Amino acid sequence: MTASLIALDWGTSNLRAKLLDASGRVLEARSTPGGVMAVRDGRFAEALLALVGDWLQQHNCPLIASGMIGSRQGWREAPYLPCPASLDQAAAALTRIDLPGGHVLTIVPGLRCEGDDGVADVMRGEETQLWGAGLPTGSCCVLPGTHAKWAWVGEGGRIESFQTFMTGELYGLLTQHGILGRLMEFGHADPQAFRAGVRLGLAEHASASHVIFAARTAGLMGTIAPRGLPDYLSGILVGIEIAGATKRGRPQTVTVLGDEALAARYESALQVAGIACRLAPEDATTQGQWLVAQRARLLR
Amino acid sequence: MTASLIALDWGTSNLRAKLLDASGRVLEARSTPGGVMAVRDGRFAEALLALVGDWLQQHNCPLIASGMIGSRQGWREAPYLPCPASLDQAAAALTRIDLPGGHVLTIVPGLRCEGDDGVADVMRGEETQLWGAGLPTGSCCVLPGTHAKWAWVGEGGRIESFQTFMTGELYGLLTQHGILGRLMEFGHADPQAFRAGVRLGLAEHASASHVIFAARTAGLMGTIAPRGLPDYLSGILVGIEIAGATKRGRPQTVTVLGDEALAARYESALQVAGIACRLAPEDATTQGQWLVAQRARLLR
Repeated sequence: MTASLIALDWGTSNLRAKLLDASGRVLEARSTPGGVMAVRDGRFAEALLALVGDWLQQHNCPLIASGMIGSRQGWREAPYLPCPASLDQAAAALTRIDLPGGHVLTIVPGLRCEGDDGVADVMRGEETQLWGAGLPTGSCCVLPGTHAKWAWVGEGGRIESFQTFMTGELYGLLTQHGILGRLMEFGHADPQAFRAGVRLGLAEHASASHVIFAARTAGLMGTIAPRGLPDYLSGILVGIEIAGATKRGRPQTVTVLGDEALAARYESALQVAGIACRLAPEDATTQGQWLVAQRARLLR
Repeated sequence: MTASLIALDWGTSNLRAKLLDASGRVLEARSTPGGVMAVRDGRFAEALLALVGDWLQQHNCPLIASGMIGSRQGWREAPYLPCPASLDQAAAALTRIDLPGGHVLTIVPGLRCEGDDGVADVMRGEETQLWGAGLPTGSCCVLPGTHAKWAWVGEGGRIESFQTFMTGELYGLLTQHGILGRLMEFGHADPQAFRAGVRLGLAEHASASHVIFAARTAGLMGTIAPRGLPDYLSGILVGIEIAGATKRGRPQTVTVLGDEALAARYESALQVAGIACRLAPEDATTQGQWLVAQRARLLR
């Protein structure tokens, strides 16, 4: 086997490494909870070599990374590229780190976007995932999660603009630390309560900090059972997100890029909103890293 | 001195007691952090007598309470009155608790409101405060706080409808437990950053979970200094609240009922929104309790 690239998805919580062959196929995959937040005193080189030192020794191949590793809190800041941004532009703007033994790590830049709403926005890692997904011109795409990203794709896969929604973080904060969680019973799926929440969030997204309170009053009034309340709140927040993201222009189809459970949740919510949904392959990140490395002529 | 009523503002965190004379003037005030959440195993009688046992013994007067003490987690549930609700209706629907020694405590009912947005809403304690403030017909009123309440007042001080906004709780969760707090330096007032946040929140309230992310990107991009970010986020959240609360009908004037610091914050935000502002007296609660007790013929 001939390895030609080590592709690193290095985020806040995890470091995921893949060893790729000369045609971009995954030969081996490893991961560790050694995300940016877990690395102490800037010991990024040690963390990296602990995971893939043997790969480097054996194959002596280049490394490419995307994600929060390129942030101010990461190994080295990889300056943001402004939107619209293409894969070619990213490949020409990689940040280079020389490693012991003559090895080289390159970091894909994150993107920034000056929204017409006056809100500057940023992403790190998702741009590579979007390029890897091979989205057609005119696509509208959502990457659900702690900070859900909505992206609009132009010609040649160029990322025209994007917006972040703090849906996942709000759900976590409200249920784990807030008063809404007190009436909830966790661990049960309730698709009906979820869809009811989506309908409410879509209709009343313009009073978001009011409408989330419905996840308390529905409990107090007994209109939704304690075990349905987590999905009700989740639905309200996803509804607020979809209505907000589509308020300047309603897409016919939205492509959902994410893990299976979250993608199914968004599929259901988009259905309530009357928007068609397409699911993208889950591991677009590696494909995107492979394409950037190719375009940057990192591969031998 | 002749005392005629013990008025209790008994909330989640605190128990505040006032001894009133025959014309409703405060003879003496006491408080303790013995709110509903601090009382263990339902020992409400003990908590009450520890604070005002000597008043009862000396004056043998009736007691009236409003606030969370009438909730399901409180001493005894005082069923919600539906809106529109008048002070007279509340006075006719008091919940009675017999205390040792022949003393009687009455609890003012909370209110519920079926919003035309499909969100049921509730309040406990604020209704008494609103009645005590003596608001003219047609008033629109805000009580800022963890769960800010917006109320619309009809003839004779009747509360027509109201809405809760989780502004204070969201600010607390996002800054204390969320990622937004990481870039912030707390303890500095920045009225300019606050007003910039209000403008953004007012304009983009329909994408609330996106626009709060601006409190992160403004920090990342250096457009707002770390010490200005707390007030910037506060402004965004208050802007979202004002725009949401007034989206079905814009009041000419809003009356703000609350402590001085919060009231000043709302005064500034309403000015940015182009809405006139009136400040109501801070201790309307005692006045409201006095009026309910009078109307219920509790006084001797």
